[in-house]
Amino acid sequence: MVVKVYGPAFASPKRVLICLVEKEIEFETVPVDIIKGEHKDPEYLKLQPFGVVPVIQDGDYTLYESRAIIRYYAEKYKAQGTDLLGKTIEERGTVEQWLEVEAQNYHPSIYNLVLHVLFSDKMGFPADAKVIEESEKNLGKVLDIYEERLSKSKYLAGDFFSLADLSHIPFTNYLGAMGKMYLIKEREHVSAWWDDISSRPSWKKVLELYPAPILE
Amino acid sequence: MVVKVYGPAFASPKRVLICLVEKEIEFETVPVDIIKGEHKDPEYLKLQPFGVVPVIQDGDYTLYESRAIIRYYAEKYKAQGTDLLGKTIEERGTVEQWLEVEAQNYHPSIYNLVLHVLFSDKMGFPADAKVIEESEKNLGKVLDIYEERLSKSKYLAGDFFSLADLSHIPFTNYLGAMGKMYLIKEREHVSAWWDDISSRPSWKKVLELYPAPILE
Repeated sequence: MVVKVYGPAFASPKRVLICLVEKEIEFETVPVDIIKGEHKDPEYLKLQPFGVVPVIQDGDYTLYESRAIIRYYAEKYKAQGTDLLGKTIEERGTVEQWLEVEAQNYHPSIYNLVLHVLFSDKMGFPADAKVIEESEKNLGKVLDIYEERLSKSKYLAGDFFSLADLSHIPFTNYLGAMGKMYLIKEREHVSAWWDDISSRPSWKKVLELYPAPILE
Repeated sequence: MVVKVYGPAFASPKRVLICLVEKEIEFETVPVDIIKGEHKDPEYLKLQPFGVVPVIQDGDYTLYESRAIIRYYAEKYKAQGTDLLGKTIEERGTVEQWLEVEAQNYHPSIYNLVLHVLFSDKMGFPADAKVIEESEKNLGKVLDIYEERLSKSKYLAGDFFSLADLSHIPFTNYLGAMGKMYLIKEREHVSAWWDDISSRPSWKKVLELYPAPILE
């Protein structure tokens, strides 16, 4: 059964795509144009009632929320492709910890930055300078803690690439287009980590197949 | 080994406490007074560098982020106490989906409500009427989708109580103290769901042992 992924141009669905490539799972994609508001179409809302991307269909199984989908495939195909969950229950606990840190601490700041710096014009609302300033400041504080962590282990959850690292890739990549990659580069261990995870063939393949809409 | 849980008076650590009671796991607690700023003490930051509660210590294993901790114990003690993850990988996927919905859609709104309505005075910042109004409006929209979902299944992830339901309990309970429980009560299926999950002996025990600071 080929997995169907909705909204491949956007960053959250790209978490799913990287995971599927790492796990060597076949997929096809269905475009959803958020700029045109297709994520609020009644047909789409039947699949994803909150009106956001991604959602996947796998036979008669439908699942949304990118971080839930990547956990599902990492577990379902544990022994296939890259192991993304760790070898022990304790390692998986630590993967879950950093996946939550990404969702709760890292993501809100970088999401607001991306939204206001890159998408406000396209989406027709005014960029808020105060939001941009505060988001960048908060992101810097979070990255200071990452710097400390990554001085002790190669990846966030330990010495293995996991869902926790993977989950950072698509939004962090936007820092380049925003001219804010210095947030990564000025921190030695964060910078080495980013070079490593952003060089993975899975991410290169996803970017090549589905360029970010801002770059189109 | 007895699990040590930091910050039991507060809502996020209470997710962990409910889970430990449901899983019949022994624990002890260590108070962390957020009102006094103890979560920013250097000793605490060694355990939890982001300076938030909870964190747990279990022998020499330390873990933070409440939703990571509850996943860890639900998996580690899968066969003990209440099963909180579902029977199949697909059921677990759906549990993960609703756990992410709680974290990404439900929590930001209810957290801002609780912060501005209940804690702003104690924490010394002005309550923002616009934040309160928008948070309540967003929470209502999310609950409309819950109402639809809960008209089709008894719990969020299906016909079994799971981490996804559990994760909503501590913050939703604050709606009572805020005089905003009507957000639940005016929706038939959400109301029946809330009556069910808030009547669980695990939650009653946690509330009895560790009353919320606002009620002290």
